[in-house]
Amino acid sequence: MRKFVAHRAKKLITNATASLFNPHHQSSSSSSNQYYTSARLARFFTSLPSDTSMASDKSTPPLTVDSLNPKVLKCEYAVRGEIVSLAQTLQQDLQANPGSHPFEEILYCNIGNPQSLGQQPITFFREVLALCDHPTILDKSETQGLFSADSIERAWQILDQIPGRATGAYSHSQGIKGLRDTIAAGIEARDGFPADPNDIFLTDGASPAVHMMMQLLIRSEKDGIFCPIPQYPLYSASIALHGGTLVPYYLDEATGWGLEVSELKKQLEAARQKGITVRALVVINPGNPTGQVLAEQNQRDIVEFCKKEGLVLLADEVYQENIYVPEKQFHSFKKVARSMGYGDKDIPLVSFQSVSKGYYGECGKRGGYMEVTGFSPEVREQIYKVASVNLCSNISGQILASLVMSPPKVGDESYDSYFAERDGILTSLARRAKTLEDALNSLEGVTCNKAEGAMYLFPQVKLPNKAIKEAEKAKKAPDAYYAIRLLNATGIVVVPGSGFGQVPGTWHFSSWMSSVIRSDSFFFFFEREKRLDTMIHLDVVRHLKKCHALVVPLNDTSIRE
Amino acid sequence: MRKFVAHRAKKLITNATASLFNPHHQSSSSSSNQYYTSARLARFFTSLPSDTSMASDKSTPPLTVDSLNPKVLKCEYAVRGEIVSLAQTLQQDLQANPGSHPFEEILYCNIGNPQSLGQQPITFFREVLALCDHPTILDKSETQGLFSADSIERAWQILDQIPGRATGAYSHSQGIKGLRDTIAAGIEARDGFPADPNDIFLTDGASPAVHMMMQLLIRSEKDGIFCPIPQYPLYSASIALHGGTLVPYYLDEATGWGLEVSELKKQLEAARQKGITVRALVVINPGNPTGQVLAEQNQRDIVEFCKKEGLVLLADEVYQENIYVPEKQFHSFKKVARSMGYGDKDIPLVSFQSVSKGYYGECGKRGGYMEVTGFSPEVREQIYKVASVNLCSNISGQILASLVMSPPKVGDESYDSYFAERDGILTSLARRAKTLEDALNSLEGVTCNKAEGAMYLFPQVKLPNKAIKEAEKAKKAPDAYYAIRLLNATGIVVVPGSGFGQVPGTWHFSSWMSSVIRSDSFFFFFEREKRLDTMIHLDVVRHLKKCHALVVPLNDTSIRE
Repeated sequence: MRKFVAHRAKKLITNATASLFNPHHQSSSSSSNQYYTSARLARFFTSLPSDTSMASDKSTPPLTVDSLNPKVLKCEYAVRGEIVSLAQTLQQDLQANPGSHPFEEILYCNIGNPQSLGQQPITFFREVLALCDHPTILDKSETQGLFSADSIERAWQILDQIPGRATGAYSHSQGIKGLRDTIAAGIEARDGFPADPNDIFLTDGASPAVHMMMQLLIRSEKDGIFCPIPQYPLYSASIALHGGTLVPYYLDEATGWGLEVSELKKQLEAARQKGITVRALVVINPGNPTGQVLAEQNQRDIVEFCKKEGLVLLADEVYQENIYVPEKQFHSFKKVARSMGYGDKDIPLVSFQSVSKGYYGECGKRGGYMEVTGFSPEVREQIYKVASVNLCSNISGQILASLVMSPPKVGDESYDSYFAERDGILTSLARRAKTLEDALNSLEGVTCNKAEGAMYLFPQVKLPNKAIKEAEKAKKAPDAYYAIRLLNATGIVVVPGSGFGQVPGTWHFSSWMSSVIRSDSFFFFFEREKRLDTMIHLDVVRHLKKCHALVVPLNDTSIRE
Repeated sequence: MRKFVAHRAKKLITNATASLFNPHHQSSSSSSNQYYTSARLARFFTSLPSDTSMASDKSTPPLTVDSLNPKVLKCEYAVRGEIVSLAQTLQQDLQANPGSHPFEEILYCNIGNPQSLGQQPITFFREVLALCDHPTILDKSETQGLFSADSIERAWQILDQIPGRATGAYSHSQGIKGLRDTIAAGIEARDGFPADPNDIFLTDGASPAVHMMMQLLIRSEKDGIFCPIPQYPLYSASIALHGGTLVPYYLDEATGWGLEVSELKKQLEAARQKGITVRALVVINPGNPTGQVLAEQNQRDIVEFCKKEGLVLLADEVYQENIYVPEKQFHSFKKVARSMGYGDKDIPLVSFQSVSKGYYGECGKRGGYMEVTGFSPEVREQIYKVASVNLCSNISGQILASLVMSPPKVGDESYDSYFAERDGILTSLARRAKTLEDALNSLEGVTCNKAEGAMYLFPQVKLPNKAIKEAEKAKKAPDAYYAIRLLNATGIVVVPGSGFGQVPGTWHFSSWMSSVIRSDSFFFFFEREKRLDTMIHLDVVRHLKKCHALVVPLNDTSIRE
């Protein structure tokens, strides 16, 4: 444990070790049991005291879990699944009984949520949002002192684009036309090819847009959607909810999560042999959770493949601003297709964008859009209808989506501060990506590909056979078992690779790179000491002055090989 | 046409009449054709020029409308359906070619969207939202001059409830816990019975909450959801999208849209005979589009019925603040159930609330919640999972949902202005409801029940047999035909009753009562002159100084009886 071990750390290690070595070890709280059963987790969601919630009653509850929609039961969403529910329960324990667990707080690395850990929003964006929320202050003299001149000007521009300047009115089902104009102009500037505001559908984040496309395309379990493995679990969840079949294509870990067209061909053939009609191909670029950035030639091959096979190309491009290596650049699939000479009629293509990612990180604002090209008017009409059923996406999110596609420009009053804020965030993300990647690769039994983009790392962990057998006994995937033990011992929330998909027999976990975004120097990292079954978590950042080390799950003789 | 006819009106009538009498009549714009074909409407949604959009191409488009999910094709959403698409096309025509239609602007009465027509938001709510969007100004001296003291205090309170004060972070999947505490307290204060924050799921308006419940409950077309007829088309759309069966129960127009338990029993029996498992009962109170407010005894009967038959009670209570008659009061179904002695385990009950309605009318903010009681922990866990797949609802909407459930109180700095704003809106709504109801009832061939609550009137219109036959020829429901002609002649957008459901052989339309909210004296109204087939629209408000009359659809000899 070397120099990081302090008195406090020793105490924490003692607690952690006790609970890890002895499953019956009880601390001051009864909640410190090592594992939470699903029944116990379920109780977390109910308002009833646990001892009465299932009590018998004169009236039989009319609804049992077995009588629910089986598609809902089948759906899994790992990034907010069992691990996160357990984390929330532990967090409640910690609040109710401080000291009841061998850590002081929960470190959520399950999902990229930058502002939850102190990343500051871009000032200009928030100024504009505040002014649009409360336009009556726009004319007041105090406002000049509080807000930048260009934010005031932009707010006026946006209000003028909204019929009646009513930011509290339902908009057009696709979103406010003027904001779509701005977004289309932003896409044109990015790609160098025309974009049409009528192709833009503004949505509450990218997730509802993905659902909308799945709803449109999936008729039955005989319809397949091609997804990368590993994939972001939104796709598997949405396909399950809509009753389709996820057709996997494997990214090649050995070549930095490469996407090979030969693999696509092989898997498409296999799916067709099973009677599956593959309708669309999901590509996530930059990759989530894998962090690779596709080469342009690779993108061309994918476009050609979709064209030839008649697949709708669903391009998840929400990390388009998150690129960390100088040798890679983001190219939208639309730009690639257009540069190949394919026009609107040649290939059906949907590009998803979100305000939650990039340097903006405005997850809670739920803004996003999809750009829909290459569909017939009749199909488009159906997309419009589905969008209409929810009336419109939230206007603040719509405004923010227009802002991220048209930030301040050179010469604007806010430009310098905007650029500094943006650059600070992106530089810090790049540094942390590299730090974490190096830290993970320095560990015996852990390998991690280069983080070229996005916000996550997806290291492979070699687990001892005995640990795998223990997991089987507990009816958990080995990496889920690992993640639960990691959480119980350290408070760190990672998502097991099995939630994303992985080559059978390999085990991974996904970790958001920014969980200690408050510091710009280190990410948490793991260091193995001596043996494969002893991993040390050095949380040097969150407790900078009193560094401590925590023994994490594999330091448990019961599962040591 | 009496005294309202002016020179300008005559010209407009001439135009309108010409186009009504002669389907080949062309005005300066080619867009003034009397009806828009669905192909033409479809073109509205595409970016392609109409003459090339369907041109043949080397590559066959892989996706045709016939190959889409049939549930999507089946889904209809009348309040933003064909009529609204036509209205948008006409609006574009008017912009491109002013004078191309016999009206100057489109009057959207299809949906309650108060701020789109100038209803001002509650100042206190917007102050708090702006401060939460841009919290860095909270400490600045200028802010004291711009914002009320209690809005600043409330913003601090809310920020303190958000982990890291991060309004740009994803929240808990059910919404920010502190805001759910506030909402639960608001429900308790409203009902006099306990409410649990763990029962609250914050959503982007009420619509996604309704979808979530349908997704949970519907397994196949053999599962039925009981809905009032007429109903708000969200329900029929959502049931269609999820592949279930809408089981109708008819509200009794003769008794003010009464909901009779005998009718429920009859329809339940009929559905069961057809092999339908009825899983839930939707009640909309106050009624949409029918405007009735249920009597408490009636609510008790409904609760008892659901309990006895094992139905989930889905209570759409989004108009709870919109009651216009002194003899009626809003009682939540949860309050009614609890006052009958039924606890959490006795009846599964979901109450939907939204920030879009009431006196707040914040449709564009997409805030809302559902309060979920009486489900087993296992079922609750599934609801939580589905909520998690979209991560969380937008934070501004969440904040607003907490504000509408805990507005300023007596003694707060903002209370007087808040009360005046609220009272002004509700008083004006009540006056307009009465004015419109009286105006409609004064027309021969039109009958309209009392508008006790909500925001719409749903008059019955007796259509001439010849008009019905013309509609059949055009393959339109007679009331849809009426609505299209009304729109083409006057620019007024109403929704045909067939989009909501109605007793076969009766015809209605739904009109938002607030379309002229800018005035507090009159709503648009119809006046019949001499004969059933001549209806005069007296738009005395929007053109107050140059009153004019427009002959609306039925004044067409081609469809006169």
